[in-house]
Amino acid sequence: MTLGSPTAVSSVDALVEHARAGDPRAVARLISLVENHSPQLREVMAGLVPHAGSAAVVGITGSPGVGKSTTTSALVAAFRAQGKRVGVLAVDPSSPFTGGALLGDRVRMQEHATDGEVYIRSMAARGHLGGLSAATPQAARVLDAAGCDVVLIETVGVGQSEVEVAALADTTIVLMAPGMGDGVQAAKAGILEVGDVFAVNKADHDGADHVIRDLKAMTRMVERDPGDWRQPIVATVASRGEGIDELVESVDKHRAWLVDSGELERRRRRRVRDEIEAIALGALRERFADLHGDDRLDMLAARVLLGEVDPYSAAEEVVAAVS
Amino acid sequence: MTLGSPTAVSSVDALVEHARAGDPRAVARLISLVENHSPQLREVMAGLVPHAGSAAVVGITGSPGVGKSTTTSALVAAFRAQGKRVGVLAVDPSSPFTGGALLGDRVRMQEHATDGEVYIRSMAARGHLGGLSAATPQAARVLDAAGCDVVLIETVGVGQSEVEVAALADTTIVLMAPGMGDGVQAAKAGILEVGDVFAVNKADHDGADHVIRDLKAMTRMVERDPGDWRQPIVATVASRGEGIDELVESVDKHRAWLVDSGELERRRRRRVRDEIEAIALGALRERFADLHGDDRLDMLAARVLLGEVDPYSAAEEVVAAVS
Repeated sequence: MTLGSPTAVSSVDALVEHARAGDPRAVARLISLVENHSPQLREVMAGLVPHAGSAAVVGITGSPGVGKSTTTSALVAAFRAQGKRVGVLAVDPSSPFTGGALLGDRVRMQEHATDGEVYIRSMAARGHLGGLSAATPQAARVLDAAGCDVVLIETVGVGQSEVEVAALADTTIVLMAPGMGDGVQAAKAGILEVGDVFAVNKADHDGADHVIRDLKAMTRMVERDPGDWRQPIVATVASRGEGIDELVESVDKHRAWLVDSGELERRRRRRVRDEIEAIALGALRERFADLHGDDRLDMLAARVLLGEVDPYSAAEEVVAAVS
Repeated sequence: MTLGSPTAVSSVDALVEHARAGDPRAVARLISLVENHSPQLREVMAGLVPHAGSAAVVGITGSPGVGKSTTTSALVAAFRAQGKRVGVLAVDPSSPFTGGALLGDRVRMQEHATDGEVYIRSMAARGHLGGLSAATPQAARVLDAAGCDVVLIETVGVGQSEVEVAALADTTIVLMAPGMGDGVQAAKAGILEVGDVFAVNKADHDGADHVIRDLKAMTRMVERDPGDWRQPIVATVASRGEGIDELVESVDKHRAWLVDSGELERRRRRRVRDEIEAIALGALRERFADLHGDDRLDMLAARVLLGEVDPYSAAEEVVAAVS
């Protein structure tokens, strides 16, 4: 079987070449092909894969209101000051029914909009499985192959999406802020295991000390072996650029640890394994969709509702039909 | 192939019989079999399916802090006052790594703990795909077959989980409350399409009028055909039981509309179709896991990282290996 069709190979090759040469329109076009699940996706990935793998992929997550966009923007400025090419993927929560983005708070990113060495892309978090778009790792690969030294993936940290961003990124920054109420507190236990670096933003606000103290207490409780990474906690006021250099330094230190410990290779391999599995499952789901088309799943569902067949026997029929 | 093995059929039959007779230990045991993905699951479902289908499945979702548990508890009391048998599934967000529940705010439910006509079960939201446990629809089927007239599924409405609860429920109540900040506002567009009934809880707090006004304005903007359901907005103070009768009335009205319009049958069929598909995909994923075991996925991932093969070709190999 063939996943994706081999049409228009030459134009994909040209696009990849232009993207590698730094043409932002080619980069944008490739990400669009990824987002729209283009039939050319296979050719796109085949063209990109040999050139990808050098970018540092940094995830930034946190609850709504902690200052993710401001921090992302400040990080872009800091990396640019080091002469690095930077890509930003802003993954918005969106209504799965309409596909429309809910949050459009990208205003602060506009300052970088005219910088030719910065690519910024908002991506919708579509699909009813998982908060992050399946296209995100592939879009990151586009930016990676296009020569970005750093790819920042910004996502709202609610529910499972912070886990997903951690699976996508080499280094995950978890942002917190004082005065966010119970939701943030409740999320901490999950966040603890996801964050490689913690940033307590709005450090000039009341209660920031308390958040830092809590975080320190919680990170101290995690059992670690001698060679394990110890998550730093950085106080920032992103709107004034305060603490951003220290944050960048922490990210760099984490990267050095990733390389030295072999964890970078492990994380990247796991990520590609997840991608392969997602593509394979997607292909199998498409076969299910074909079954939807000929009403077999509907008929099976109706029989389960009538109590005539159990859902496992029905699933067996489906598996047999697609494999 | 066989999904689940046919062991201990007689004891499963006995469990189903006891559960139908109202034995809470049998109900609890069946839900445990569901949660633990017991190899007997197929027999359990085969035993339950002929007896399920009469319960009204009501989802309750909303951001942390809006008063979901309090409202659920008040609804249980109201349905009990009508002489109905009630099941409650409280789906907690949990750390996907440790499996531990983050929120344990079930204290208010204790008042019903000694009522033999009320089954209450907390369920973990495990798995990195989706916020709701895959076991939830099957646990709801246990309660349904055990004679519950109403099954309440309470879940934290963050990210995609509110969409998932809507997929599970006949009727979804979306809870809001004043003073919840940007997070709630941002979530509204998604919530609009998910809610069959809106409850604005803490209606005695400042800002409740504003939330109700906003909701009214937003629901008015939705285009509807003449026979379509119009989402009611109910003001409640769940901690004092205020507005709960009106909320129950709205749920009952929605149910009548579901039956009359044929939407109940459509929703239930879609739900079972999703369940069948999830079981089928799970079986295929297990085959992938077997591939993990013999390192094939790891080797493919390594080759993608080396740029030797694209992820689509790798996925093709995986699909070919399992089908």
